[in-house]
Amino acid sequence: MTRKGLFLSFEGIDGSGKSTQARRLYETLSGEGRDCILTREPGGSPGAEEIRALVLQGDPDRWSAETEMLLFTAARRDHIERVITPALEAGQIVICDRFADSTRLYQGLSRGDLREKVDALHDLMIGIEPDLTVLIDMSPTDALARAHARRGIEMRFEDFGLDLQEAMRAGFLGLAADAPGRFRVVDGAADEETVATRVREAIAPDLP
Amino acid sequence: MTRKGLFLSFEGIDGSGKSTQARRLYETLSGEGRDCILTREPGGSPGAEEIRALVLQGDPDRWSAETEMLLFTAARRDHIERVITPALEAGQIVICDRFADSTRLYQGLSRGDLREKVDALHDLMIGIEPDLTVLIDMSPTDALARAHARRGIEMRFEDFGLDLQEAMRAGFLGLAADAPGRFRVVDGAADEETVATRVREAIAPDLP
Repeated sequence: MTRKGLFLSFEGIDGSGKSTQARRLYETLSGEGRDCILTREPGGSPGAEEIRALVLQGDPDRWSAETEMLLFTAARRDHIERVITPALEAGQIVICDRFADSTRLYQGLSRGDLREKVDALHDLMIGIEPDLTVLIDMSPTDALARAHARRGIEMRFEDFGLDLQEAMRAGFLGLAADAPGRFRVVDGAADEETVATRVREAIAPDLP
Repeated sequence: MTRKGLFLSFEGIDGSGKSTQARRLYETLSGEGRDCILTREPGGSPGAEEIRALVLQGDPDRWSAETEMLLFTAARRDHIERVITPALEAGQIVICDRFADSTRLYQGLSRGDLREKVDALHDLMIGIEPDLTVLIDMSPTDALARAHARRGIEMRFEDFGLDLQEAMRAGFLGLAADAPGRFRVVDGAADEETVATRVREAIAPDLP
């Protein structure tokens, strides 16, 4: 693949504000006259959104972890082929809310023995990584406090628990430590405006 | 996986009569008082049938070969987990109309560079093979003559052409030569009854 653009993903635990910050960065860069697209996973292309709906609808146990992994990889493949690669080839900045790092952690934490399979499947069928990954880092306690205003997020916390969020945070920081060239860790424990400024500064040196 | 039963797949080119023979063997063995199930791919479990529908509906070009491969592998994984493995563990004979060999050939013939990926994905996410594979072998010309009575099959021949069917036949025979312990090649150029007898005899030594 020829990449003329820049592929940028946002990661972080639930309630960290990563989706908000992805959108804000999209608005900021667009406002500067840069050619950007904002997309998300799982989903992001019409085909991937259909696969996403197939995975998420119905009984949560209707798919095994392995089948779910294959379905999400199919969705990612479609998203890359139909949206991300054409945008990068056209020189655009692609801002993606979650990408493969989320899969690595979610599948790995739900079943430790799957982590190796997740990586092998990614290498075999996906193969690409973002040029930059902005990790919005904050403690799960802070994220939970912020999420009190947002019932959807709060319910997911209640489902998964603080322990899992702590493990997710540690997992993201571990991935960032393993790939310092790709990750930009941004402290998310501040108001939205301040974090947005931190994000913009963190990626400044890498902008075309 | 503990396999107490027997996992038996049927393969062959379009019009070879493989689905008919799979059903006939199911009826014969059931009639002998053996505990069998008859299933098919792609599909075979409720989840896999939903994935099959997602792949096959709409524009034939809506999914790339790689995405389609991932979706069919997800369907196969579900089919194995929900139907095939439980049946084998319960000591049943599982008769499956098409399995991984069809995928190997279809994807490999449509894009030669994919064959290695198909094998790697199978090893990573599926891992099991049938105990026995009955290949109903016949020349595409004979299959076409037989198919004249069956419009659906005939149209597929017109779509794909005799050359592709010749390549499929050669591919199946090549797979059989590579795995003689697993394959039973049965001459399909005879009336249904005769071929059914040949199939029953070919698998006799391996029945529990």
